[in-house]
Amino acid sequence: MTVNYATPAAESLHPVPGIRLGVTSANIRKPDRRDLTLIELAPGSRVAGVFTQNRYCAAPVLLCREHLSYASIRALVINTGIANAGTGETGLAAARATCAAVAELMGLAEHQVLPFSTGVIMEALPVERIVAGLPACRAALAGDHWHAAAHAIMTTDTVAKAASRTAQVGGRTVAVTGMAKGAGMIKPNMATMLGFVATDAAISQPLLELLVQQAAEASFNCITVDGDTSTNDSFVLIASGAAGNEEISDAAGSDYAALAEAVVAVARELAQAIVRDGEGATKFIEIRIMGGADIAECRAVGYAIAHSPLVKTAFFASDPNLGRILAAIGNSGVDDLDVNKVRLWLGSGDDEILVAESGGRAAAYREEDGNRVMAPAEIAVRVDLGRGASETKLWTCDLSYDYVKINADYRS
Amino acid sequence: MTVNYATPAAESLHPVPGIRLGVTSANIRKPDRRDLTLIELAPGSRVAGVFTQNRYCAAPVLLCREHLSYASIRALVINTGIANAGTGETGLAAARATCAAVAELMGLAEHQVLPFSTGVIMEALPVERIVAGLPACRAALAGDHWHAAAHAIMTTDTVAKAASRTAQVGGRTVAVTGMAKGAGMIKPNMATMLGFVATDAAISQPLLELLVQQAAEASFNCITVDGDTSTNDSFVLIASGAAGNEEISDAAGSDYAALAEAVVAVARELAQAIVRDGEGATKFIEIRIMGGADIAECRAVGYAIAHSPLVKTAFFASDPNLGRILAAIGNSGVDDLDVNKVRLWLGSGDDEILVAESGGRAAAYREEDGNRVMAPAEIAVRVDLGRGASETKLWTCDLSYDYVKINADYRS
Repeated sequence: MTVNYATPAAESLHPVPGIRLGVTSANIRKPDRRDLTLIELAPGSRVAGVFTQNRYCAAPVLLCREHLSYASIRALVINTGIANAGTGETGLAAARATCAAVAELMGLAEHQVLPFSTGVIMEALPVERIVAGLPACRAALAGDHWHAAAHAIMTTDTVAKAASRTAQVGGRTVAVTGMAKGAGMIKPNMATMLGFVATDAAISQPLLELLVQQAAEASFNCITVDGDTSTNDSFVLIASGAAGNEEISDAAGSDYAALAEAVVAVARELAQAIVRDGEGATKFIEIRIMGGADIAECRAVGYAIAHSPLVKTAFFASDPNLGRILAAIGNSGVDDLDVNKVRLWLGSGDDEILVAESGGRAAAYREEDGNRVMAPAEIAVRVDLGRGASETKLWTCDLSYDYVKINADYRS
Repeated sequence: MTVNYATPAAESLHPVPGIRLGVTSANIRKPDRRDLTLIELAPGSRVAGVFTQNRYCAAPVLLCREHLSYASIRALVINTGIANAGTGETGLAAARATCAAVAELMGLAEHQVLPFSTGVIMEALPVERIVAGLPACRAALAGDHWHAAAHAIMTTDTVAKAASRTAQVGGRTVAVTGMAKGAGMIKPNMATMLGFVATDAAISQPLLELLVQQAAEASFNCITVDGDTSTNDSFVLIASGAAGNEEISDAAGSDYAALAEAVVAVARELAQAIVRDGEGATKFIEIRIMGGADIAECRAVGYAIAHSPLVKTAFFASDPNLGRILAAIGNSGVDDLDVNKVRLWLGSGDDEILVAESGGRAAAYREEDGNRVMAPAEIAVRVDLGRGASETKLWTCDLSYDYVKINADYRS
């Protein structure tokens, strides 16, 4: 079940001049499903990425980091089915072989190719099937295949995730289009499962690297499904420069701001789509933590709420079990938290209600109000820590029977 | 469902001279169930306790800490149904009123009474029902009521938890008997939900305080069900001194060692019983982390595995999903972990198999071996971090449909 999300129509996804995508069914782990994607970047394109902090990071992540130290990335290759993580030296060789095959097919150097894998961990990547599928991907390359590619990168996702915007940059209209996948093992740390956003705007490499960090911080780094950081998290931002605008090189300028707004909007829409399609999700929950001494403690409190299985099952039950939220706040590691200053609200907009203050239940709180604001598919939680001026927002989903079912059955 | 645990028979629980227990049905939240327990300690008894680190600690925990600063505790009063946590000043007044009522009934000072509450958070404690039930508790006081009391402190527990040992101390046989409750919101930090262990041995106050820490470290602080630290965690160790042995005052002596062995054994049996009765548990999992640079990182890795919903659902499915365990290890916050040195085993005793090494799957590992060792109700996981000589053990359970059912339904 997906909470208030449907894949955008193919025609609503703006092609990005300079970027072409092709997909095929390479039978990597299961037959007859699209599982291999090739993305071709025009010469002169710039790429920046952020990757998982998991120490068991996957072979393709190691290779992406290595290849991004060179300047001229020209192709991305993405397979589903097998994550090529926890595979040691053999896995690294398999990722290199994949890049070499793409390079040979497209007349590139191996280090101009970035590889991405997602799927089961600790199983061997079937390189020969990927190599066999590459010519079909190449033959399918087209600028308007974002919709198909968003489907081809899915694993336990129930819907494909894509988003698109335009921005005015240097008097020209540029496109910003992206796709992402992920539904479980989602608690990105610097990046998400797999996210790709491209624009035809021209932007300097240092600013592109700034922008990918900025977008990740405002989107993929603010979501969690189950608190498990994946071995393969990767978020990549591509700028083809095909729009022909004067290269953006001033981080304080209006062009950077206009582009950043569009990129952040696309990244956030994708990140929230991952939560809306979280494994077994029936509720979409926004957690806003304000009044913190710094962002780090706001996040610690937000994640303590978002990761508590007791809070998540209460959301599933639409049960305003306030005590579980307070216990999670008290358990978040903010050692000198004064619970008498903490205030907690549920609901949003016109129907936001104060439920706790002064170390306990708010005097005016009535259980029927709590039941009402917990009933919808989207629930907002707001906490004021009463310690400072920092604030942050996180997004998560509930914990349902289907979460257990999906993860007890996956692989079988 | 409980994993390989049944409440010991009443006659197997040694009475502790100097300690009497009485229970009654006080209708605190639900009618016709035993929900109020009174424990009377002989004059001269000593008490030491460890309590939750949750910042939203409950009113009775605040009062326990205050009253333990005095020397002569003579009574404990325990109610289920309402946790009296997240209740602010009103809750503190209710806990004080409970102590005052016990004190008046038994001819004690208010600070000689320790109060304990467990149940729903953020609802008001019905003091008048507790006060009305106290005379029946007092009338029921007897040394052989551990079995009844272990039942009377249950909430979502499906079985009562008690354990008993004897030890030879100063030429005398002393009893060590205890009880505990807890099934959810279990990730004790210095103590567990509610645990009470008593002995008739005479022991000095400083050594009793050492022993309660030592026992908590080796038992309740090594378990987790859902990673949520409760607001009411309390573990109390009582020494009545009625055995008449020469007071134990040497932490390096054989008497302390003999008593500590029995107390740790009782505490560990109770702690493991909580995991075996964990909400929805179908598997009991022992996680042993060795080769760490220090105990803290061993625990961090152990808890990363024990708290991962993906690992816990794989255990539920008896699925040797090694990648999820590796991802949890990589995600445990040990920044300079060299995954090439990490080794992972599943199974135990004669049937322990090496499943991962050198950053990937062990060469000799076969999936059918993994399936075989994951099938039993008790599963052992062993990780060698290859960094040092520290090691620790943790115990946890799996994440099942019933966990979600229990926590989506609780309160309703």
